[in-house]
Amino acid sequence: QVTSPSGEGTDAVVILEKTPFQEEKVLDLLKKHTKLELQMHNDIYSTYHLYPPPELSEIKTTVVYPATEKHLQKYLRQEVHLIRETWEDYKNITLPFIQSQSFSIQWVYNILEKKAEADRIIHENPDPCDGFVLVPDFKWNQNQLDDLYLIALVHRREVKSLRDLTAEHLPLLRNILQEGKEAVAKRFGVPGSQLRIYLHYQPSYYHLHVHFTALGYDAPGSSVERAHLLTDVIDNLAMDSTYYQKRALTFALRADELLLKKFQEAGRV
Amino acid sequence: QVTSPSGEGTDAVVILEKTPFQEEKVLDLLKKHTKLELQMHNDIYSTYHLYPPPELSEIKTTVVYPATEKHLQKYLRQEVHLIRETWEDYKNITLPFIQSQSFSIQWVYNILEKKAEADRIIHENPDPCDGFVLVPDFKWNQNQLDDLYLIALVHRREVKSLRDLTAEHLPLLRNILQEGKEAVAKRFGVPGSQLRIYLHYQPSYYHLHVHFTALGYDAPGSSVERAHLLTDVIDNLAMDSTYYQKRALTFALRADELLLKKFQEAGRV
Repeated sequence: QVTSPSGEGTDAVVILEKTPFQEEKVLDLLKKHTKLELQMHNDIYSTYHLYPPPELSEIKTTVVYPATEKHLQKYLRQEVHLIRETWEDYKNITLPFIQSQSFSIQWVYNILEKKAEADRIIHENPDPCDGFVLVPDFKWNQNQLDDLYLIALVHRREVKSLRDLTAEHLPLLRNILQEGKEAVAKRFGVPGSQLRIYLHYQPSYYHLHVHFTALGYDAPGSSVERAHLLTDVIDNLAMDSTYYQKRALTFALRADELLLKKFQEAGRV
Repeated sequence: QVTSPSGEGTDAVVILEKTPFQEEKVLDLLKKHTKLELQMHNDIYSTYHLYPPPELSEIKTTVVYPATEKHLQKYLRQEVHLIRETWEDYKNITLPFIQSQSFSIQWVYNILEKKAEADRIIHENPDPCDGFVLVPDFKWNQNQLDDLYLIALVHRREVKSLRDLTAEHLPLLRNILQEGKEAVAKRFGVPGSQLRIYLHYQPSYYHLHVHFTALGYDAPGSSVERAHLLTDVIDNLAMDSTYYQKRALTFALRADELLLKKFQEAGRV
């Protein structure tokens, strides 16, 4: 994705996107007027530069013109930085930052209290301490199982993130793992062995929740620098109740995120 | 990604990948012999089909020839299953399976012995025990930093995977982390805070190696069910030398993979 301002007084946003291959055109691509240049050869492996004819390499182009400042900002690339947060960093930088923010999580409470999305609930364990509600994530339209995405929201309200978890929360976490898998299998026919079940750190809101996504779906936020498998979290806590109050945790922050500024001010980036 | 067998008795795998845009070529793309076809117009928004000249729409092509049945299977689309492998599973199922296979890693030895790709080496620590070679991964064409991908291959040959690691390997792993980051910063100007540095489990070949990818790049195999951050691996081993001979590890296997069959036969799936 590329953004380029026009030079003529008024700005434009131009978005260029390479589109997926179309299966029925692949044979043409390998035959038709295609220039091939050897780049590297080692044993049975070789790599080439292939230069396809224009009609086989369409680029999807979107133009916003005239574009306002807001349009320009929306499409500008943000640099990301990896943070390795020790427990001391959490106490001194991250926790005060979370507490100073007033992220509204009213929408979470609305779901837990059945004031919103009550008809969307897939499963509930009503226990106030070890219970949770399982709902489809906003990002999933439920039209196909390929990008299945559900969220388990815990009933208890004082657990902000992974950093707050101890062995005390094992019954809750095991309920989510076990009942969540069963509910998804029952409702959607997707077995537990085809689910990626994980927490985010940092999460996007500080009320404990667990992500359920289709294993074959390259879900945003499922990469190693953000996702923590629930099974691993359970094993870590079973091994050491204070695991998440000891260990350094890695996550990425975009250049415009306030938390990054806090780490920079503390000389930790 | 497309796979196509040749029709001539011996099979080949052909992988076609569209590569990221190169920033310095975007202006050419918008000017030079580029056919533009209006598709949709609404207020300030419009979309086009853009047909670029061949030299501006390179497709990265990888050929495996001759390809074995195993190579063909590797690239065909398959259902995936999540496995939670205990240490007993590793000893009783995975290790015997690895030992029974004869997947050639001659290409790794070729690199370590400078018989191939010697001119591509970015950095080397020649120590036979704690040293390694850093090379660009086959998947990266080195034209742009967006999809930067390098591999550190260790010189010692008896370490198959994460499962073999103990505190004994900490000097090696710390060298890879430290020197790898420095070498990438020096050669490519990408700081360590913008690198995702990790191991795969299961790896695709059983000679210890570490992946370096651009943090902003959604690299294949960087998701939580396969990737293990090198910093986490180091912390785990520093905490407990036998961590990886104790812990259950999660990974996905495609339906056609022999190892899945072994887990099924053992009643573990």
